[in-house]
Amino acid sequence: MKLYTSIGPNPRLVRLFLAEKQVELPQVQVDILAGENRRPPYLGLNPAGSTPLLVLETGQALAETTAICEYIEELQPTPPLIGTTAEARALTRMWTRRVDLFVVQPMTSGFRGAEGLGLFQDRVHCLPQAADDLKATAREGLAWLDAQMADGRPFIAGQALTLADLMLYSFVEFGALVGQGLDPALQRLGAWHQRMAERPSAKATA
Amino acid sequence: MKLYTSIGPNPRLVRLFLAEKQVELPQVQVDILAGENRRPPYLGLNPAGSTPLLVLETGQALAETTAICEYIEELQPTPPLIGTTAEARALTRMWTRRVDLFVVQPMTSGFRGAEGLGLFQDRVHCLPQAADDLKATAREGLAWLDAQMADGRPFIAGQALTLADLMLYSFVEFGALVGQGLDPALQRLGAWHQRMAERPSAKATA
Repeated sequence: MKLYTSIGPNPRLVRLFLAEKQVELPQVQVDILAGENRRPPYLGLNPAGSTPLLVLETGQALAETTAICEYIEELQPTPPLIGTTAEARALTRMWTRRVDLFVVQPMTSGFRGAEGLGLFQDRVHCLPQAADDLKATAREGLAWLDAQMADGRPFIAGQALTLADLMLYSFVEFGALVGQGLDPALQRLGAWHQRMAERPSAKATA
Repeated sequence: MKLYTSIGPNPRLVRLFLAEKQVELPQVQVDILAGENRRPPYLGLNPAGSTPLLVLETGQALAETTAICEYIEELQPTPPLIGTTAEARALTRMWTRRVDLFVVQPMTSGFRGAEGLGLFQDRVHCLPQAADDLKATAREGLAWLDAQMADGRPFIAGQALTLADLMLYSFVEFGALVGQGLDPALQRLGAWHQRMAERPSAKATA
């Protein structure tokens, strides 16, 4: 297998996932600033033009971060990051989806409509007129997640580290780089973030 | 198990998935027009306030459409709608994600910022100033999917019906109700849509 990776929070999420699994894969760096991912030969592998991309041993190209992480979990089930039972997997997927919908999508879209506009305006349909609202939506999503942690859970989905934590951590780190840092008033998420930052996976992928 | 369902494309997607599986579940109708999903007791089951919601036999509440479908697939693997191998599941998840990102999210957000504003403005952060651009983004996503079908594949992810088709079908049907109908110029998607509409699952959930 071969992982096509680049700068950015989605590639980092896959690298975090691999680091927690202690799986090492050959990596190919894709220069997304130069637009390598938006032209052949990369577009032949992934017509959506996104990174990361995992090329399987069959030669099949697999895009989309969560699909890649699910695949790695199936190949290497320990330590479990999605779950060892149908119910545990379902709850990880629910929380991962909430992180995605409430934080990742508006944060990313807000960035692309503002600080990232120069890079993204010819690549995706950007929404500069909604950038402030999108960033506010991401802040509201983070506050909602913080409130869910009022039950004392150490991780987003409960008692165990899952894909939901790795996704949120990667995007909170990204947000901090692009003017969408975590509000210090969100104390539970702040403490969670500090614990996540201390993990070897965070340091190995920084 | 018990399925909390309502009007709307996400609940319909779960019902389509169940119909293809020939699984019947007790259903509870949630009146989202009256806001039942945005207040207790429903919010106690799903603090995100979304429908559908599956309450498992353990009493655990499971929200988020794709998480629910994955759970049903694990309980009832035949006919497979996500896949019978790690690679097949990965590709279904990739295409489902593309349908979600390129069509479902912008279509839904465009609706909420325009025709759906009255219903949604006090429920989620709406983007009326970006509604036209969001609808255009969904149209571009549909055109992209149509282009991917130039290889003659009968279904979104290839040779077999998957979750990606059911998701897209449910949202194309929704789009047609809210001024975001499928462009007749997209002939491959048009033919696909006609085949999907003829399935017993489509008729049983109409």
